[in-house]
Amino acid sequence: MWGSKVTTLLPMSVGGGEVTVGLSRVLEPVGVLPQAAWRLDSAPELAPDEVRIRVERLNLDAASFRQLAEKHGGDGAAVRAEVLEIIGTRGKMHNPVTGSGGMLIGVVDEVGPESPLPVKAGDRVATLVSLTLTPLRISDGLRDWDGRGEQVPARGHAILFGRSVVAVLPEDLPAELALAVFDVCGAPALTDRVVRSHGENVTVAVLGGAGKSGSLSLTAARLAGARTVAVVVSDAEREALHKAGLADVVAVADARDPVAVSRAVTGALGGPATVTVVCVDVPGCEHGAILSTAAGGTVIFFSMATSFSAAALGAEGLAADVTMLIGNGYVPGHAAFALDVVRRTPAVRSLFEARVARD
Amino acid sequence: MWGSKVTTLLPMSVGGGEVTVGLSRVLEPVGVLPQAAWRLDSAPELAPDEVRIRVERLNLDAASFRQLAEKHGGDGAAVRAEVLEIIGTRGKMHNPVTGSGGMLIGVVDEVGPESPLPVKAGDRVATLVSLTLTPLRISDGLRDWDGRGEQVPARGHAILFGRSVVAVLPEDLPAELALAVFDVCGAPALTDRVVRSHGENVTVAVLGGAGKSGSLSLTAARLAGARTVAVVVSDAEREALHKAGLADVVAVADARDPVAVSRAVTGALGGPATVTVVCVDVPGCEHGAILSTAAGGTVIFFSMATSFSAAALGAEGLAADVTMLIGNGYVPGHAAFALDVVRRTPAVRSLFEARVARD
Repeated sequence: MWGSKVTTLLPMSVGGGEVTVGLSRVLEPVGVLPQAAWRLDSAPELAPDEVRIRVERLNLDAASFRQLAEKHGGDGAAVRAEVLEIIGTRGKMHNPVTGSGGMLIGVVDEVGPESPLPVKAGDRVATLVSLTLTPLRISDGLRDWDGRGEQVPARGHAILFGRSVVAVLPEDLPAELALAVFDVCGAPALTDRVVRSHGENVTVAVLGGAGKSGSLSLTAARLAGARTVAVVVSDAEREALHKAGLADVVAVADARDPVAVSRAVTGALGGPATVTVVCVDVPGCEHGAILSTAAGGTVIFFSMATSFSAAALGAEGLAADVTMLIGNGYVPGHAAFALDVVRRTPAVRSLFEARVARD
Repeated sequence: MWGSKVTTLLPMSVGGGEVTVGLSRVLEPVGVLPQAAWRLDSAPELAPDEVRIRVERLNLDAASFRQLAEKHGGDGAAVRAEVLEIIGTRGKMHNPVTGSGGMLIGVVDEVGPESPLPVKAGDRVATLVSLTLTPLRISDGLRDWDGRGEQVPARGHAILFGRSVVAVLPEDLPAELALAVFDVCGAPALTDRVVRSHGENVTVAVLGGAGKSGSLSLTAARLAGARTVAVVVSDAEREALHKAGLADVVAVADARDPVAVSRAVTGALGGPATVTVVCVDVPGCEHGAILSTAAGGTVIFFSMATSFSAAALGAEGLAADVTMLIGNGYVPGHAAFALDVVRRTPAVRSLFEARVARD
């Protein structure tokens, strides 16, 4: 038998010091990380390694906005009131139903003397960490927002910790466009990494290929050399993607219907996909994604509506030897990668511009 | 821009025919796969590719049993009544709160003429697909179970579909022991695969190292050449694991406390782990696992209490470049692999025997 050693553990720093992950901002319950907290301290005074942002605009997570819009039957004033109430109560925009947040854009107001972040006062930036862990205070009652779109003009302030991710906005692209790209920039970077890890002759199915993360993932997959199918929910989305030419095949199916999705993917690619990317922000897409993926393949779940147990038990129940990834929103270099995909692909840029104009 | 083709999709078979995944057993809602269904048809009559099992014993999923036991304050009769009600209502043992099930042991009663499964009538088998998708009917009111343990003596029948996973019980190990091993056999097989994919000098942290999936994962990691730390919840568990010698270091920390877990792992290994395996069946362990893992490393979530959004947003919020896997209960050869780990490691066998004796 192996030797074993029982240790007495000494206090150590975590990731460069505990303060860097925002523990001192957690009010309730004490001792958890900011994302897990019910309530954060959004006071404007900075710790030495923090940064304060003057907020210009929030970009709500798609699943969160959809839940709020559906709950209030599209009543914008009611949606606005609930967003204000969430932020006021929790000290962050953390939808308690979906568990998701979004991100924001603003101008750096003050940088603590010990901040490791590569920004200076006056920089126009986007935060690439979730609003679910970002201390936030709103000062204008969101009066310039009609409650009917994900992009929310806002005044107030937000706090970034030492260990955070923030990008200075590019000068060659409109801020709203960059913000929309940054919001999902982990998806194309991770898709690229996974596609390349599978080597040659890779096929990729993107469920929800017409959305923001979907269209970027589709494009990243093609740029990485994959043959692609986009599965979309309506003929209108199919026509738009077909016209944009972003996928080799575009098919219509309800992503919540495993049999329909699997037929669509298999029909388009001649067999199940090497990699399936789930970008549909509604619950119940796990089994279709698993059934659509070849043995030895990978499913990447980017939708916040994904159920962990449905995925785990679904793969087991279907005897499916697939690798299932929780879509990590952070991949080093993801913001620059996503902007590059948009710059290189006018059709993606057009889709994003149209979406920003609608919001 | 790339060419694009809009297809009209023709009906195709899925994974060898739609019947094979049990669609015909789904009563409500129609069209979903059996795991996603609210209610299954548990009638004993077989479709041509189905198999009927005469049930001897259920093994409830740990998270499910814990939820039921806590809900009823340890009142065994009340737990039994609720399990009976769930099975009677849903046609399967699918805990509506945890979303999890378990597995069962029994004897093959009848094999449909078109079944692809490698079993014959009279074989004593364990089902390796979740009870959440297995049609089940109980005929004895679970009268031989006191409602106080995960292993449930039972009479009745269960149905296996064409695409399923079932293992004939080994003759050299007691059935209850094999059942307990099979219940978590995906964990050591996937741990082995992931550890080997990371090459040399791999370190592995197992959160919940004293449990069933934890002790097997720890052992698989060491057999694959990794240096290991087990994080456990109490001094009693630490002493037991220390005595068994299953890990290089055993540390005590609350897995729900990210800072405490990260300190424990970093202190034991001299830095964050290459691979962190989460086997703690309580909610809130995502951030500790992420903080404990090195950049470029992998977190494997086996606990059904894992929150998808907490993991995804946590990694993003911590700017953590880690690969996060949803623990797939199916890896080809997993049952034989797990039995081999137990046979080769007397201390693991002893832990399982003690656990089976307690249940």
